[in-house]
Amino acid sequence: MSRRVVGVLGGMGPEATILLQQKVLATVQANDDSDHLPLLIDMNPQVPSRIAHLIEGNGTDPGPALAQMAQRLEAAGATALAMPCNTAHHYALAIRGAVSIPFLSMIDLSVAKAAETLKPGDAIGFLASPAVQSAGVFEAALSAHGLRAAWPADGPRMLSAIRSIKAEGPTEAACRILNAAAQELAEQGAAMLFAACSEFSLMAEQLDVGLPVLDTVDVLAAAIHKHIQRAVGPPKALRQICA
Amino acid sequence: MSRRVVGVLGGMGPEATILLQQKVLATVQANDDSDHLPLLIDMNPQVPSRIAHLIEGNGTDPGPALAQMAQRLEAAGATALAMPCNTAHHYALAIRGAVSIPFLSMIDLSVAKAAETLKPGDAIGFLASPAVQSAGVFEAALSAHGLRAAWPADGPRMLSAIRSIKAEGPTEAACRILNAAAQELAEQGAAMLFAACSEFSLMAEQLDVGLPVLDTVDVLAAAIHKHIQRAVGPPKALRQICA
Repeated sequence: MSRRVVGVLGGMGPEATILLQQKVLATVQANDDSDHLPLLIDMNPQVPSRIAHLIEGNGTDPGPALAQMAQRLEAAGATALAMPCNTAHHYALAIRGAVSIPFLSMIDLSVAKAAETLKPGDAIGFLASPAVQSAGVFEAALSAHGLRAAWPADGPRMLSAIRSIKAEGPTEAACRILNAAAQELAEQGAAMLFAACSEFSLMAEQLDVGLPVLDTVDVLAAAIHKHIQRAVGPPKALRQICA
Repeated sequence: MSRRVVGVLGGMGPEATILLQQKVLATVQANDDSDHLPLLIDMNPQVPSRIAHLIEGNGTDPGPALAQMAQRLEAAGATALAMPCNTAHHYALAIRGAVSIPFLSMIDLSVAKAAETLKPGDAIGFLASPAVQSAGVFEAALSAHGLRAAWPADGPRMLSAIRSIKAEGPTEAACRILNAAAQELAEQGAAMLFAACSEFSLMAEQLDVGLPVLDTVDVLAAAIHKHIQRAVGPPKALRQICA
């Protein structure tokens, strides 16, 4: 079977791209380096700001830069693409249109995963950038599964938490904002929470709320594993047992 | 000025490649994503084993695979190359011969850095793979600066620590082996220690020995910063102060 490699449109932000690599690493029970999964990562923190374009309305369209990154990753040998930034999925069409390899949409895969345990009409509470809300990044996927979205009332406060995590890493203050938002979404009747901002993924495990939390980066890591593993066969340990 | 991007020959192992990214991130005082440094990372854990080729003598030569990775990174836009694996620097000539962009040698840069504070005749104690010793990876650089190398007597024990870190991450047992080796090198009269195996870099800060410890991955991160920064100018905060 031919070698499969997932190309990563990264750098939005760099910590989230590192987090995805750690999560991909954790999907493998490794005995040696060679058991791990190959990735081609374009760590490009200079992609025009999604927030400036979608919310502030004064930024360059990041679509062309993302399309170019996708093409370069395909040219370099990627057999599928992944992007550990929920907001940037607003530009998924520009990416899909630029390449002939599959784009593993963190959005579509996460909603499909949630739909396995939710029922039509249920609400997913979003811990995400207000840009994800205003751009309707999750709308089509939710609607296809008959699900609804619930959002924290104070979008600017969520954005301030994201900005502080980008600048300072996970802080106490950001953690408090996130927990308050989770509580608010629970009170709105959400059946599940999505950590749908890769900055919040850095803190998803510290959330203290009585609801299932799905981290969209976890879903993406599992999809990367599945894409590559399908080609390379079962992991080494299994092959050894069967030999 | 044209954009500079450092291509990373990675995956040897994946944790070390992630560690390099974290260390590069830490070289930047960032206010937003765009302040961070662009990297193109070929996370390729399937590079033939350096240990099998250099020590066990029964493995494929990793040189051609590394040369191909280097060429693909150059074709994808890299303006310099870096490789967070000390042992793989044995194949630096194959890499340099395959591309026209500079290779930021972790070996040469680290010895040059050490030479700033050491004097000719001083010994550097190596916490490294016995493959680095037997292949003489540091020999030319040490000799150019009149420095000597000191090695732990029990190479196989160092190798077992590396293998356990590759399989299980940093463990208590590996930490004990590393500290015992550090102690032994201090008794041999080493003036400085090199954490010169990227698996050991994961634990370098936990070393408890009264000698300066230089982590070669830190030196590489600083060189990446310098290569890119020279082109993009001073960081944003400085430009704002001057505006």
